[in-house]
Amino acid sequence: MTAAGTESRRIVVLAHEKFPDRAKTATGVMRYGNDDIVAVLDRDRAGTRVRDHRADLPDAPIVASFEDVPDAESVDALLVGIAPIGGGFDETWRPDVRTAIEAGCDVIAGLHYFLEDDEEFSELAADHGVDLVDVRKPDPTLGVAKGVADEVSAEVVLTVGTDCSVGKMTATLELVEAATEAGIDAAFVPTGQTGIMISGWGNPVDRVVSDFTAGAVEEMILEIGDDYEMLFVEGQGSIVHPAYSAVTCGILHGSMADKLVLCHEAGKEVIHGYESFSLPSLSEYIDLYESLGSAVNETEVVAGALNTSSLSDDEAEKAVEAYADELGVPASDPVRFGSAEILEGLR
Amino acid sequence: MTAAGTESRRIVVLAHEKFPDRAKTATGVMRYGNDDIVAVLDRDRAGTRVRDHRADLPDAPIVASFEDVPDAESVDALLVGIAPIGGGFDETWRPDVRTAIEAGCDVIAGLHYFLEDDEEFSELAADHGVDLVDVRKPDPTLGVAKGVADEVSAEVVLTVGTDCSVGKMTATLELVEAATEAGIDAAFVPTGQTGIMISGWGNPVDRVVSDFTAGAVEEMILEIGDDYEMLFVEGQGSIVHPAYSAVTCGILHGSMADKLVLCHEAGKEVIHGYESFSLPSLSEYIDLYESLGSAVNETEVVAGALNTSSLSDDEAEKAVEAYADELGVPASDPVRFGSAEILEGLR
Repeated sequence: MTAAGTESRRIVVLAHEKFPDRAKTATGVMRYGNDDIVAVLDRDRAGTRVRDHRADLPDAPIVASFEDVPDAESVDALLVGIAPIGGGFDETWRPDVRTAIEAGCDVIAGLHYFLEDDEEFSELAADHGVDLVDVRKPDPTLGVAKGVADEVSAEVVLTVGTDCSVGKMTATLELVEAATEAGIDAAFVPTGQTGIMISGWGNPVDRVVSDFTAGAVEEMILEIGDDYEMLFVEGQGSIVHPAYSAVTCGILHGSMADKLVLCHEAGKEVIHGYESFSLPSLSEYIDLYESLGSAVNETEVVAGALNTSSLSDDEAEKAVEAYADELGVPASDPVRFGSAEILEGLR
Repeated sequence: MTAAGTESRRIVVLAHEKFPDRAKTATGVMRYGNDDIVAVLDRDRAGTRVRDHRADLPDAPIVASFEDVPDAESVDALLVGIAPIGGGFDETWRPDVRTAIEAGCDVIAGLHYFLEDDEEFSELAADHGVDLVDVRKPDPTLGVAKGVADEVSAEVVLTVGTDCSVGKMTATLELVEAATEAGIDAAFVPTGQTGIMISGWGNPVDRVVSDFTAGAVEEMILEIGDDYEMLFVEGQGSIVHPAYSAVTCGILHGSMADKLVLCHEAGKEVIHGYESFSLPSLSEYIDLYESLGSAVNETEVVAGALNTSSLSDDEAEKAVEAYADELGVPASDPVRFGSAEILEGLR
């Protein structure tokens, strides 16, 4: 998907049985996207409203099925905001997808199972003239990087992490908001399916052919890099991850990032799902990211983002302070304490 | 393809208009593979023999087309040993592929264009009960790495490079031969299409989904790692390559290599095809490979392989000496001077 898709839509978010705490994509799209949320589908919470569960999300009614969506003819798209382990399609969602297509809605999903390859959905979509958007399906025109991402006029900032799931996407989106509020013309460069669904464009870098990893990031930077002052590239994985480091390395070199923000989760000591691997020290992370990145384009860690969601307010404040001290650069938990310190580090 | 495919076959190698100097796959398969070479197809050199062109390859007649192959009914497979830029299928090869299939031969190719997806070939292959083997087509059962390649009994040696095309595959194959001759039970772990065609099995690591890069290497090591004393993993790209570093990083971490052999081409100063990027110093390469690799599994550069093919004998000897001095470990040009010094470094 190209950056043209960023206009606001009226959407319904499917999050059956998982809203809000196990619906990261749904809540991410609601919190950070530009879309108007018409309704959330969750059969377990039908009859309640979003504000009954979360104060930081735009309010909307929660209903049991697409048939119950108020004012359904005004909806542009149904967005699948949850994913079962493995990324398959849950057959209990089929009636909602069918009803949405019949109501003239596009359907957007980030599953490994592609809606487009589903015979019923593809025929129905053709009949009703709607689009099935599988955001995890890589653009077949992607190719190898040319090593020219540094030629865009925007400064390129990349979030890098100590592990997967430490809050890189959230930190990146918070930074775009904070920079924009501070008068910087900033944009988000998504690299994963949730980021793509939030922003309405982007390449799923972890799904492209391995030879095109850097190229998939470069392509996005070249597309919008002359239209903004600052790009915030969503990082993936970690450079010491036994399985995902290749994607991390490709994003680091493909983006040719000028500045890095090191993201970490307070208290984390081992790699999630690979518990026999301890996290190296923060200074080792800094050395690795800076030396590896600078081999292609001079770069340094200029700020830190610490996810303190598991701590009390008091603990969180101390943890952020200790994190900044250890990194030797400004740091914050952008969700809890705002992004001012991090922006300071970026200047 | 699994490691079961390593038995010897009787093959015909297609290398039209390019044998031997522009037919790297053909000559690699002939030099390092286990297959009996029945004939080479090159319409420009028909009537000559392999020994008229190259002394280091097994001799065989060169003929103009598959129809001219002597004793064609004894042939097991036609192997496409060249690739046009872009990896397409050259339509002038169609009659040879057709004739081979009709003669009951499998056809093996490493093109981006998959023979299996060619309607004529797939129908003909079904009719004649032969296999079309597209070695660049990744195994759909691959997944993410588990971080367990270090659990096999074999010692894992990985060739890493200062750039693409510096001779990593050749060095790796020479090392397997030399180790075997020295009484070590050694095996080659292929990661690219030429290596796969030479050895008859393997995953094309540069073609897999980026999230599965490390997993594709780990899968091969787990498959054969308890059957050998030493595995030599074919490296790809370079850790400072603007386009391909992701693949390099995935192989480094997926293989969990115990020892690294740094491969370089004498005199090379800039990245091939990316000439605005200078190569870092050799000590920077060592630092990067060792620190990045050791973050997942303790590793070090224990030997060097220098490609001196562009130098005179005298220059080559001096260059190897200087290379060993600069690395601080034993080094050789394994093609020119043998692999004894490198094996010494591996002990």
